[in-house]
Amino acid sequence: MPMPATVAPAAGALKIDSSFAVEARGYSDARLDRAMRRLVARVARQTGIDIRGGKTVLWIESRAAGPEHPTLGEDESYQMDVSPESARIVAATVTGAMRGMETFAQWIDLGPAGFEARSVHIDDRPRFQWRGLMLDVSRHWMPMPVILRNLDAMAAVKLNVFHWHLSDDQGFRVESRRFPKLQTVGSDVHFYTQDEVRRVVEYARDRGIRVIPEFDMPGHATSWFVGYPELASAPGPYQIERSWGIFQPTLDPSREQTYTFLDAFIGEMATLFPDPYFHIGGDEVDPAQWNRSAAIQAWAARNRLKSASAIQTYFMRRVAKIVARHGKTMLGWDEVFDTALPRDTVIQSWRGQASLADAARAGYRGVLSFGYYLDHMQPVSTYYSVDPLDGAARELTPEQKALILGGETCMWSEYVDPETVDSRVWPSAAAIAERLWSQFPDEVTDSLYGRLESVSRALDWVGLRHRANYGPMLERLAGEGAPDALRVLADASEALGIEGRRDARHYTSMVPLNRFVDAVRPESESVRRLERAARSDSPEARAELRVTLTAWAENDTRLDPQGELAGLSKNLSVLGSIGLRTLEYLDAGNTPPEGWIGRQLAVLSDMEKPDAEVMLAAVRPVRILLEGAAQRLSSGSNK
Amino acid sequence: MPMPATVAPAAGALKIDSSFAVEARGYSDARLDRAMRRLVARVARQTGIDIRGGKTVLWIESRAAGPEHPTLGEDESYQMDVSPESARIVAATVTGAMRGMETFAQWIDLGPAGFEARSVHIDDRPRFQWRGLMLDVSRHWMPMPVILRNLDAMAAVKLNVFHWHLSDDQGFRVESRRFPKLQTVGSDVHFYTQDEVRRVVEYARDRGIRVIPEFDMPGHATSWFVGYPELASAPGPYQIERSWGIFQPTLDPSREQTYTFLDAFIGEMATLFPDPYFHIGGDEVDPAQWNRSAAIQAWAARNRLKSASAIQTYFMRRVAKIVARHGKTMLGWDEVFDTALPRDTVIQSWRGQASLADAARAGYRGVLSFGYYLDHMQPVSTYYSVDPLDGAARELTPEQKALILGGETCMWSEYVDPETVDSRVWPSAAAIAERLWSQFPDEVTDSLYGRLESVSRALDWVGLRHRANYGPMLERLAGEGAPDALRVLADASEALGIEGRRDARHYTSMVPLNRFVDAVRPESESVRRLERAARSDSPEARAELRVTLTAWAENDTRLDPQGELAGLSKNLSVLGSIGLRTLEYLDAGNTPPEGWIGRQLAVLSDMEKPDAEVMLAAVRPVRILLEGAAQRLSSGSNK
Repeated sequence: MPMPATVAPAAGALKIDSSFAVEARGYSDARLDRAMRRLVARVARQTGIDIRGGKTVLWIESRAAGPEHPTLGEDESYQMDVSPESARIVAATVTGAMRGMETFAQWIDLGPAGFEARSVHIDDRPRFQWRGLMLDVSRHWMPMPVILRNLDAMAAVKLNVFHWHLSDDQGFRVESRRFPKLQTVGSDVHFYTQDEVRRVVEYARDRGIRVIPEFDMPGHATSWFVGYPELASAPGPYQIERSWGIFQPTLDPSREQTYTFLDAFIGEMATLFPDPYFHIGGDEVDPAQWNRSAAIQAWAARNRLKSASAIQTYFMRRVAKIVARHGKTMLGWDEVFDTALPRDTVIQSWRGQASLADAARAGYRGVLSFGYYLDHMQPVSTYYSVDPLDGAARELTPEQKALILGGETCMWSEYVDPETVDSRVWPSAAAIAERLWSQFPDEVTDSLYGRLESVSRALDWVGLRHRANYGPMLERLAGEGAPDALRVLADASEALGIEGRRDARHYTSMVPLNRFVDAVRPESESVRRLERAARSDSPEARAELRVTLTAWAENDTRLDPQGELAGLSKNLSVLGSIGLRTLEYLDAGNTPPEGWIGRQLAVLSDMEKPDAEVMLAAVRPVRILLEGAAQRLSSGSNK
Repeated sequence: MPMPATVAPAAGALKIDSSFAVEARGYSDARLDRAMRRLVARVARQTGIDIRGGKTVLWIESRAAGPEHPTLGEDESYQMDVSPESARIVAATVTGAMRGMETFAQWIDLGPAGFEARSVHIDDRPRFQWRGLMLDVSRHWMPMPVILRNLDAMAAVKLNVFHWHLSDDQGFRVESRRFPKLQTVGSDVHFYTQDEVRRVVEYARDRGIRVIPEFDMPGHATSWFVGYPELASAPGPYQIERSWGIFQPTLDPSREQTYTFLDAFIGEMATLFPDPYFHIGGDEVDPAQWNRSAAIQAWAARNRLKSASAIQTYFMRRVAKIVARHGKTMLGWDEVFDTALPRDTVIQSWRGQASLADAARAGYRGVLSFGYYLDHMQPVSTYYSVDPLDGAARELTPEQKALILGGETCMWSEYVDPETVDSRVWPSAAAIAERLWSQFPDEVTDSLYGRLESVSRALDWVGLRHRANYGPMLERLAGEGAPDALRVLADASEALGIEGRRDARHYTSMVPLNRFVDAVRPESESVRRLERAARSDSPEARAELRVTLTAWAENDTRLDPQGELAGLSKNLSVLGSIGLRTLEYLDAGNTPPEGWIGRQLAVLSDMEKPDAEVMLAAVRPVRILLEGAAQRLSSGSNK
């Protein structure tokens, strides 16, 4: 995953053992060397084999380095051939070779005689050239290890843009030497030094990933004003925002000093970040401060800016000029779109394909984020179904379609912290990566979840914590209690996204994210398996149902939870009992009493509301079982 | 764990929240500062709270630094007071304060209103001053992260000696600048640079842990001879040994060049390792090379050395002089004991308390390792029951007893690698740590396993991989199969130790340790819980039994394993069915048919032999259930 463009299997398999080695043939450089060393280390981890090398099993043939830094539109294609004798990756650039190496790592499998790579010819290239992950490090601080391991995971699924949301109301996260109060008083001392930024850029470059910084303006900027209140549209003092939402503090568009500051600041950051694209945010501006300021209103009148939106447009045009002066191409959210902006501006859309279509018709390029918001914690299949060229974009001409560069999945961090963020980004982001990379994503939807589970496990070996932190978080909550029973409840539950949590209690950045809902995953793999089992009559499926339904039925007695989990736990045990009863009817071929199935379905419906900020996913397989029983038993009586 | 000398609980509890901070009052230095910062980071990890500080909750009062490096016999005592307002640790030395901080970290618990430390007065000091862990890094290489995380874990349970077994037949693991071929050709390029050694020493010092290097001689030295064949008692060439056992290559005791080499080498290492103790091994010498060499035999005759043992004694006396010349005190295994050695020599005994008693009667100090060999994979209770002052040592006078300094648990690495080593050392080593630290270990045996489970989970937050690697290793083996079912089988199994594995197949250092037996733990926590449940009539116990026995009964259908696990898997399902039937009889109060229980017990006995290098621990709770049923039902029929 992502599924390659063409996969042609052949007979036999290449053995992977402790003599495994990778060597470059033809072009080579330090970046490729490091990538080859990483591949060997990864293969050692994922197979548990102490690899000592000695026999070159995989040859890397890159024709050239490619651009010095990963670049929009660079050639990422590769071919991979595996035969029982050896394997070979051929690519035009080092980046392409690295994409191939990720495919190779995923291609290794446990065969009957040990680890192996089956014989195959793969020819692969990306569908979209912009495949990104945006991470908000302002609302919750994300220290360096979080960034680095997520870059490794991005590379593993061939994402190529790391969009770093570095400033917002809740914190300014990068060191400015020109304006040090940005980070010293605007960040709770949680910020990346310039050395750390350079390390991230270098780390990403080594993995073929571009790094694009975002400094959100003119709104979402409270943290700037803690150190520099004179930039705001209303007098200070300001404090770092601790709550979530849209806030009023906004840059003052009427004072020349604002643009002088931005010019110096953007100039400094333009040097720090080598990628030619530069994101200035521009979303969700609350005009309250502008409306209340006599000075700003007078200035607006003088400049014939008749509305807040006209003021924003003015501001954005000025910023666009600054960005361009520092040699960068501007990116902004939907709201910045305005046909007076330079034609190379890129629109990132959280609103939908229609926004992008509008921009494309005007000749502007775009990137889709609508539908890819991971903080909403949608099922993976929902994310997967969203396509940048769908909806309003379907009506575009081929030339206009070409302006839609790809997509970016976004992780806003109101409800994630360094311990939980991986489990909300992954494996969903892998499915979105496939949507953006693969040539025919709609043709492999059926196998999506099966492949997703494999990739999710593979990402463990890459270093992600998306699965590793689950057990320890639950054990922390179980305290001296029964950790297994708490895990049964967690496995049967699915955590709510931002829509479900924002009103559940008073959340601020000071509230620890260490509760049940934070440990629970967005989508339950074990419930999904049980849904499959509930549709099957195989002995394996029946065995799995009996085991899990028994565990559910007995769980409330074992767990006996006090507090917020009491109702949820009781409901799970009721579900287990209903499921076991249904299985008994099915196994015996008996018809349940008149109305029994209907009454059970009604009980299930009552359980379908959020409780303790999670949903009881366990309802789904039991419903499938009941509906199946209703159908089977009624058709049985028709015979 | 280890249990403090006195624990006096009081009313109330101290709340632990994001304002938590630690501050020194009185003496302070950089080492204490780092320890305090580590404590804050640990508390943040184990509670999941983003600690921002602001309110000093814990005061550290160390009266002085104590010795510059951790030292045998330094004052490690501390007092800890916790009240609802604040906590305080008072100690004579920074090392004592660090011991107290570990107690504080373990004392934090999830209360009804969040994390807290219950009010208490603790007065604590170690029973033995030498509490060690020996790690063999020669038979399997252990890279830096393994060493560092195990030092963290040692500190967490108050172990204070890291005995680093740095050379053996299978690899020479430290950089010598005087004799670089030791590591360049004797190590497969897996060795610690001198900088890394210094880093380990410093890291250990920061945690109050001494580092004692061992260079095993004159036997167990094949790896030396790969680069320096002239040191051996028979002509070369030599190769790194890939097998396990006792091998013939032995230093040549008859040539002065051997001692010249050792003098230069030990001199170099004496500078690198600051601890005054230096381990020269001395165990398991095979005299075959000596016996076969005419030159050595002639030399021995000239020197009136009439036996191999006399030759070894001669060699050890020469080495003892070299060690002393470089300002170090010598340690060696049982075999080196000889009353002509300097009186400060320390004997480490793998043979038992009788060896130590003999040495003590002759005025020599000793350290017990007999009974603490972790590669034997004994139950923790077995390790725990071994006491340095037990057995023959009971007969000693108080002055002689005082010569027994403590104990060291040993991890020989034939059957462990970086991925599995933690799971064989921990949590067993925590129980041995308690045996060596606590004043009255025999009085808290009943609560041993309960506390052990808590400590084992706490060690997750310290950074160990003893539990973290279990799931991923099993999933790797499951491949596309059912990972849950494989885990059920693994949870019900216990891995064999070295005695059971050495003849199970042809093992060498080239055989990957990535099979089922390597993932499976030495002792099953879930089976232990089930044994408890099988002895109880409570509803929780019955629920747990029904859940687990159902899972076992259905598991073979779900897993359907091919290959080495087929028999084991079938047996587990038979056990599950027997257990469920027994529960039915018990629940219904029915007497099973004549002879049924006896027949089932016979089936269980058949399952008690190793299979796939593991034991089916699941037999134990089912036997308890059957025996309980036999008793209950027969006494019922007597009514």
